Amino acid sequence: MRSPTAILQVICPDRPGLVSELSGWVAANGGNIVHADHHTDAGAGVFLSRIEWELEGFGLPRGALAPAVEALASRLGGSGELHLSDAIPRVAIFVSRQSHCLVDLLWRTRAGELPMEVPLVISNHPDLRHDAEAFGARFVHLPVTAETRAEVEQQQLTLLREHGIELAILAKYMQVLSPGFLECFGPVINIHHSFLPAFQGAQPYHRAWDRGVKLIGATAHFVTEELDAGPIIEQATVHVSHRDEVEDLIRKGRDTERLALARAVRLVLRRQVIVYRGRTAVFD
Amino acid sequence: MRSPTAILQVICPDRPGLVSELSGWVAANGGNIVHADHHTDAGAGVFLSRIEWELEGFGLPRGALAPAVEALASRLGGSGELHLSDAIPRVAIFVSRQSHCLVDLLWRTRAGELPMEVPLVISNHPDLRHDAEAFGARFVHLPVTAETRAEVEQQQLTLLREHGIELAILAKYMQVLSPGFLECFGPVINIHHSFLPAFQGAQPYHRAWDRGVKLIGATAHFVTEELDAGPIIEQATVHVSHRDEVEDLIRKGRDTERLALARAVRLVLRRQVIVYRGRTAVFD
Amino acid sequence: MRSPTAILQVICPDRPGLVSELSGWVAANGGNIVHADHHTDAGAGVFLSRIEWELEGFGLPRGALAPAVEALASRLGGSGELHLSDAIPRVAIFVSRQSHCLVDLLWRTRAGELPMEVPLVISNHPDLRHDAEAFGARFVHLPVTAETRAEVEQQQLTLLREHGIELAILAKYMQVLSPGFLECFGPVINIHHSFLPAFQGAQPYHRAWDRGVKLIGATAHFVTEELDAGPIIEQATVHVSHRDEVEDLIRKGRDTERLALARAVRLVLRRQVIVYRGRTAVFD
Amino acid sequence: MRSPTAILQVICPDRPGLVSELSGWVAANGGNIVHADHHTDAGAGVFLSRIEWELEGFGLPRGALAPAVEALASRLGGSGELHLSDAIPRVAIFVSRQSHCLVDLLWRTRAGELPMEVPLVISNHPDLRHDAEAFGARFVHLPVTAETRAEVEQQQLTLLREHGIELAILAKYMQVLSPGFLECFGPVINIHHSFLPAFQGAQPYHRAWDRGVKLIGATAHFVTEELDAGPIIEQATVHVSHRDEVEDLIRKGRDTERLALARAVRLVLRRQVIVYRGRTAVFD
Repeated sequence: MRSPTAILQVICPDRPGLVSELSGWVAANGGNIVHADHHTDAGAGVFLSRIEWELEGFGLPRGALAPAVEALASRLGGSGELHLSDAIPRVAIFVSRQSHCLVDLLWRTRAGELPMEVPLVISNHPDLRHDAEAFGARFVHLPVTAETRAEVEQQQLTLLREHGIELAILAKYMQVLSPGFLECFGPVINIHHSFLPAFQGAQPYHRAWDRGVKLIGATAHFVTEELDAGPIIEQATVHVSHRDEVEDLIRKGRDTERLALARAVRLVLRRQVIVYRGRTAVFD
Repeated sequence: MRSPTAILQVICPDRPGLVSELSGWVAANGGNIVHADHHTDAGAGVFLSRIEWELEGFGLPRGALAPAVEALASRLGGSGELHLSDAIPRVAIFVSRQSHCLVDLLWRTRAGELPMEVPLVISNHPDLRHDAEAFGARFVHLPVTAETRAEVEQQQLTLLREHGIELAILAKYMQVLSPGFLECFGPVINIHHSFLPAFQGAQPYHRAWDRGVKLIGATAHFVTEELDAGPIIEQATVHVSHRDEVEDLIRKGRDTERLALARAVRLVLRRQVIVYRGRTAVFD
Repeated sequence: MRSPTAILQVICPDRPGLVSELSGWVAANGGNIVHADHHTDAGAGVFLSRIEWELEGFGLPRGALAPAVEALASRLGGSGELHLSDAIPRVAIFVSRQSHCLVDLLWRTRAGELPMEVPLVISNHPDLRHDAEAFGARFVHLPVTAETRAEVEQQQLTLLREHGIELAILAKYMQVLSPGFLECFGPVINIHHSFLPAFQGAQPYHRAWDRGVKLIGATAHFVTEELDAGPIIEQATVHVSHRDEVEDLIRKGRDTERLALARAVRLVLRRQVIVYRGRTAVFD
Repeated sequence: MRSPTAILQVICPDRPGLVSELSGWVAANGGNIVHADHHTDAGAGVFLSRIEWELEGFGLPRGALAPAVEALASRLGGSGELHLSDAIPRVAIFVSRQSHCLVDLLWRTRAGELPMEVPLVISNHPDLRHDAEAFGARFVHLPVTAETRAEVEQQQLTLLREHGIELAILAKYMQVLSPGFLECFGPVINIHHSFLPAFQGAQPYHRAWDRGVKLIGATAHFVTEELDAGPIIEQATVHVSHRDEVEDLIRKGRDTERLALARAVRLVLRRQVIVYRGRTAVFD
């Protein structure tokens, strides 16, 4: 068992001395850094940093950390976020009828690979109730039609609030979330069954087969208002051949979807991902 | 050293008994099959076959093979092509300023990986003369502008004819061939520096960087009139990260371009590729 | 839903005419071949064939197929095996304490990826009872010690017989099966958590970490008397870095283990694997 | 064109405050850090760091850097190494008869992928003289027999000294260097044609074929006295099938050898590799 750590993410304008200033602040408070990674986007003049240190023996009490980080980031003219590794976030998973990503995420959570709790599974179909409940999650069936979408999204938002959800994962949820929903809740991670930006939108495997591609892929990304255009976290591909029918692409694709989504969720939960300018820096 | 073989490719309407009929024909003439692979596209009702047998001891003389194959294919209501493994095709390589694919193809040819001869390299820039000539190819520099394109293509076609070229490879040739050219000559293989259909057209690496993708790719395909839309032969991808600038994408991409193109060329030269309905069956 | 097919596997001494003879036999009985693949091991003088055709409309009744195949193979001086795609085999899974392969195989079976039934899960630990039973399998806990091994293996063999088991899968079963067991039952597929032949035997991830390798792997193979030396069916690898502790290797390795084992099981169930001379031909 | 940077590598006992101390030293001298990466091997109690900053505007003159770094590292109880990115090292390549790695390294050097000069190629066979000289390197043919090995190694060491060589690369040099050689010269990088520790020693592809593996690999590593046991820098694998003969394994293996070796050389040249306790940390 690892001892708990604090993870600081900072985004600010680039200038000399930032690495020293951040690590100096940790050191001045007696922190032992276990990971430190930085990135400078020279074109954008942006500096990104992720520093992780042991909480044990750190000079500031937990309650004082957030304001101290805010002061630090503001001194650098940027923004900062602090996360404690023993604060396990509550996550909701949205699904439709396909179970592979849901079961995979729930199994990985139980196995200790994903530091999260999943108290809530929301679906527009009733099919996956058993899978959700077998892992101890509450399953809520909320059918969606064009007419009821707005109302259903309100119910979804209420459920997220009631269950104290901090992150939503669309694990093959075959519905588009409205801009209004995304204004009220975030972040949301989605798995799309193509190597974006190829085959955005519906039925990517059918279109991949029609085009005769020799590899198919999956993309885990943050959801934004524009469909399939949010910051990409992780992508994976697998080779296919002329022998593969559309149903074979779907079957092979499930494995890349599961892997890409699980890796992305783990990276996000461990605060290894920083989003900026429509893209991600992934500190792994 | 392998003894020479005959390779038969057949496309015809699907029906029971085709595998038996084709292999029976080879057997009836005393041929020893070393490879036999078939594919049925059930949706299209198309049967594809590739059969390879040893020439030694085969009952038909070389001169009688082509007409016999034509008769066989016509009996099946389809078309057939015969290739002898010791007939080494003459290939022209088109390049612009980047040398990686050219040097790789020439080195692989010299190393015996690619059963072809390369007597001719055509370029719209003078830069790669030395590389072409070091491997014994004639290098012809034909600059292209919008105004001279038609005329230059005529010169290119003349060169191809004079050198007895059977296949052209666009190894990072940064020009589009006109429909008129493609009517006069084929087949032509191109390497595109993206995993098609993503980033068709110009500057795919720049656009990949802008989109923030986590993998980049390369696609080897046959050239058709529609840009980057021809039948795909081979694709490859490589992971990239936020640390990679556009120039790093270009550098990493070169390796996938070289590999995808070399594999595609080898497959085509060994007659392992059958094109049908805008796609390929690759018998490997 | 595909219509049922017959799959014939033949091993015999190589000579000209075999492909024609086999496909001719299918055609003579009115069969429509949907897949046909062959391989000649020139060094060994061995011919291997896998032919699959539609049962519907085939001239021989199901009951007459096995003797007809036996006669055919014996005429070729070899051996043959026939399998009907709608004959779903009953499979037993052996596990110890790790659930990832078990849950993956059971989920894939339920999802229709693996044409098998799993009525029986045998374990030397009680931990995975719930996972097995959730998917409808009987779970039998049979602890093993050096003293009781022989006796327990008799109980295992009795269970396999009682449940009509045709194939056993060791899905992270951390016990070695005795030669006596393997004489009484087969085939048995195992997943070993290294890219064999590296790190045969115990604790491969620990030894991989000690050696400082940059990739780890998993190997699915048939079990033979010699430990980790049976015919290899499928292998997969994943990159690791200096940041990965042994526990990270174990975590990352689970994904390659799941994938390699699932692919191997699917290949075996679909009769795409032929074992000969201590190795496999995999017709995919 | 990037402006020149200084790269500092430090190994020392782990304790809190090291990241701050190192980056503080850079900042105190006015340096702008462009990369900073660290690793703690908790089990060994060892701290590793790689920091890269722009030379322009740095407070210490070039001549004062080495002693300053020595003082810094000694204050931390460890050792440090400083490299300037515009100091292009002179590298010797050792070969036997296979050209693929040699041509690849020379081409990449010319293309600007590998920041090195290659004034010298040493071989125990005369075959590759033309390839070496085509890229401007001096080619020295020094045949080796068991009897002459000691004497030849002295000649090799003299050549390395005369040409001011700092790094040697064994690019398919099919000879073992003696402990005496390695005491006099280092570092030396080798490419071994297997995924070590599988198939150490001679003829790995033949042994891989015999074992019936489904993937083959290549390993780039530092050479130490113990054969194929030095710290691993990079590994790559590629799938093979029952259709691949030994010669196909050799052909496919060449691609993984080229890629693994080129990546390793680039990492070493850019000082992204730190060796400690028989293993490497690779900061990429």
